[in-house]
Amino acid sequence: MLNKKFIINLMGSVLMFESLFMLLCAGVALVYGEGDFIVLLTSSLITFLVGAASWLPTRNVSKDLIKREGFIVVSLVWVLMSVFGALPYVIGGYIPSYTDAFFETISGFTTTGASILTDIEALPHGILFWRSMTHFIGGMGIIVLAIAIMPYFGFGGMQLYNAEASGVTNEKLHPRITQTAKSFWGIYVGLVLLQTVVMLFGGMNLFESLCHSFGTLASGGFSPKNTSIAEYSPFIQYVVILFMILAGTNFTIHYFVLNGKWSRIRNNSELWVFLSIIGVATMIIALFLNMGEKYALEHAFRSAMFQVVSILTTTGFVTDDYTAWPQYLSFIIFMLMFSGGCAGSTAGGMKVMRHNILFRNSMLEFRRMTHPQGIIPLRIGGKVIPKEVVFTVLAFVILYIIIFVIASLILTFMGLSWESAMGASATCMAGIGPGFGEIGNPVGNFALTPMAGKWLLSFLMLLGRLELFSFLILFSPEFWRNH
Amino acid sequence: MLNKKFIINLMGSVLMFESLFMLLCAGVALVYGEGDFIVLLTSSLITFLVGAASWLPTRNVSKDLIKREGFIVVSLVWVLMSVFGALPYVIGGYIPSYTDAFFETISGFTTTGASILTDIEALPHGILFWRSMTHFIGGMGIIVLAIAIMPYFGFGGMQLYNAEASGVTNEKLHPRITQTAKSFWGIYVGLVLLQTVVMLFGGMNLFESLCHSFGTLASGGFSPKNTSIAEYSPFIQYVVILFMILAGTNFTIHYFVLNGKWSRIRNNSELWVFLSIIGVATMIIALFLNMGEKYALEHAFRSAMFQVVSILTTTGFVTDDYTAWPQYLSFIIFMLMFSGGCAGSTAGGMKVMRHNILFRNSMLEFRRMTHPQGIIPLRIGGKVIPKEVVFTVLAFVILYIIIFVIASLILTFMGLSWESAMGASATCMAGIGPGFGEIGNPVGNFALTPMAGKWLLSFLMLLGRLELFSFLILFSPEFWRNH
Repeated sequence: MLNKKFIINLMGSVLMFESLFMLLCAGVALVYGEGDFIVLLTSSLITFLVGAASWLPTRNVSKDLIKREGFIVVSLVWVLMSVFGALPYVIGGYIPSYTDAFFETISGFTTTGASILTDIEALPHGILFWRSMTHFIGGMGIIVLAIAIMPYFGFGGMQLYNAEASGVTNEKLHPRITQTAKSFWGIYVGLVLLQTVVMLFGGMNLFESLCHSFGTLASGGFSPKNTSIAEYSPFIQYVVILFMILAGTNFTIHYFVLNGKWSRIRNNSELWVFLSIIGVATMIIALFLNMGEKYALEHAFRSAMFQVVSILTTTGFVTDDYTAWPQYLSFIIFMLMFSGGCAGSTAGGMKVMRHNILFRNSMLEFRRMTHPQGIIPLRIGGKVIPKEVVFTVLAFVILYIIIFVIASLILTFMGLSWESAMGASATCMAGIGPGFGEIGNPVGNFALTPMAGKWLLSFLMLLGRLELFSFLILFSPEFWRNH
Repeated sequence: MLNKKFIINLMGSVLMFESLFMLLCAGVALVYGEGDFIVLLTSSLITFLVGAASWLPTRNVSKDLIKREGFIVVSLVWVLMSVFGALPYVIGGYIPSYTDAFFETISGFTTTGASILTDIEALPHGILFWRSMTHFIGGMGIIVLAIAIMPYFGFGGMQLYNAEASGVTNEKLHPRITQTAKSFWGIYVGLVLLQTVVMLFGGMNLFESLCHSFGTLASGGFSPKNTSIAEYSPFIQYVVILFMILAGTNFTIHYFVLNGKWSRIRNNSELWVFLSIIGVATMIIALFLNMGEKYALEHAFRSAMFQVVSILTTTGFVTDDYTAWPQYLSFIIFMLMFSGGCAGSTAGGMKVMRHNILFRNSMLEFRRMTHPQGIIPLRIGGKVIPKEVVFTVLAFVILYIIIFVIASLILTFMGLSWESAMGASATCMAGIGPGFGEIGNPVGNFALTPMAGKWLLSFLMLLGRLELFSFLILFSPEFWRNH
């Protein structure tokens, strides 16, 4: 038996919590006085009232949460937040279609950053702040999800990190989940503030600095500017590159650095693979942009690195239109969409750790061929990776590819070209933002996607964000069988 | 220490054996009297002399073949056969460039069927017969053929057989490997003759019937006609469909059918998945060809089924230009390129069995999530699949994807579009033949590929045919370390 009342109670409190953030944005609207104050206030009120109506009658139920309810809650929270988060856009008429508004909101919460807006700067500041705020909230959600909740359920990126760091034992930084979450939120908010200050120093105004910091640390990608980061100085661009890398790094590493435990970083092979991919891809692209496309050397390096880091960390900010690059360079960008950032970061995608495990395990096969008798376990960072972990990673990657292929196929049926369809699926599943071809390319956006396509892509964003299993398990008959 | 002399001896005998097949084609040339008799005779003589010169001085060496030598022999055989097999094209001036001639030959032996010829019918009959003969020789595997015919290959024959045998199940029909090889070759030759007779009955002449039977049963795809099977009657097209399916089915199944052991078929889940993929893909494509493209119903069904079966069995015959179909239908064809036929058939590619194992194992993950305590083994066809097998399959698929991506990327650097590059890599690795975009599409061919691209694609064909590991292990340092 599901404890439905407790689920309703939890959802109520989440909505009330969301309404507070909307109220904050209403405050921003008040400062700028562009007519969106009342819109945000109304949205906040509606959200609060629905939340309170769910919370109040159920506040005294038993607070037992078993594993099955956990899965339902995790998926439901993201959907419900997006359903209500779309209100300001629709009520204010800034995005008249609810489909579009929902797409924009779930794209925000899942920190994808794919947009259907064609003229972002036409929106008032309060609404734009709410748009970036969805990233900030989503980023926080991911931290709890990835670091606290998913390992508890026995899957997700952080479990892989734990597997590497210390076998399967769920090594926690603090004995209690809430403590862990608080530590990481501290780091997250600290980094947001730090980036804001540095960008203010670089000449960006406070509003834009905050919005861009939200977009960076959450690995989101929404910008209040039509041209994203392209219109800012090289200094700002390098700052964004640096903070995107920090956002795509496992937050435990930040924690260890802050506590002076440098030795823990040396053994983290995922981090080194992640940085190596950035380095190699940047070098190759910079070289060809400089030689073939006649970019000046510094410009080529900066443009290559910005786009590589933005795609790899699944952020999605842009300073250059990579679809206008030669086919071989845009192909590299497309392939990087399947990498993802580090486990335990705010980045989405398949995650470097998973590739690391599968690649190294596959290479072992050659050793196994020449030494068929010996048992050769997989070791990463000096630790043996149990077979069960490899199987979980394998299942994830296989499912990821299957879903990518099916989604791309459905999109081609909706009239998209191969390139657009594969680009849109890949970018939404990984939570990046910009795509390829005529849909979602860096200078265009998702406005032209057919309506059914927008719902499909919204579904993919959520699926990717919840690392497939925690969401897909809700569709397995096994899950609903009576226990 | 490698037994180099014995390797040289083996290679010598393989070349002498190849020269006999060339001599046979010289006979065909004599019948038609088109000036290629002397070309084939010369090529045969050169091949024989080089073979004899290698074999004679080494014929008395010890015939010990350890596992390491097995891997070297298997890869070397295919390369050497292709090096000499290209002679008739070059000596006769039919294909002036050696690169092109080598591409055409290795495409024949690996039963890929990708061609650089723009006017096939301009070639004399003897040469065209040799072209189809390379399919026939390559179909059941050169090593398997050698084991069946040359008794002394039986020394360490099992090592060689396993290294070359296609697919994941190395099911042996007889305790003795030479017996197994003979049974398979018997079935193979029997089916070739049967198809030839049926096509003669359908009105095709003997020469074309033989060439097309070679191309069908070997899952090759070379046709002596410029328009492949398109110019023949629907009856012939259905016959080819049927025999392509037989060629793509595990040959042990044919063996069991011939011996009345029907129960063995019922448990073969790979076969049912294979037939289901054919059924579903045919239905979807036929429906859209009929509704959207206004094909008549029978025409839509036949065209859909022919192309689906041809791609799935990695044959590569065509009756319709699928690149002219809507994007969503050609995308299905592209995806089918990653399926492949059944293990233990003449088809190449990733093989249905591997997908079956990985998919089912991934689905188990949901069960494992809800029952984390229980040990849930993977069962297919009532048998438990050991973890080691899953790991080997996993390693294969990961390597396959990595090689596909890197090869596609290199091809984009040579100036190909994404679509062409991915199409060419996919079709050559799987041993299919026709590709996508401007290179290798069903009505065009590989003539326009840059020279370096042709060598890369030749490498991919061999890699795919030897199922990656048997070939790639030669590049691992582990392999060459002193033992």
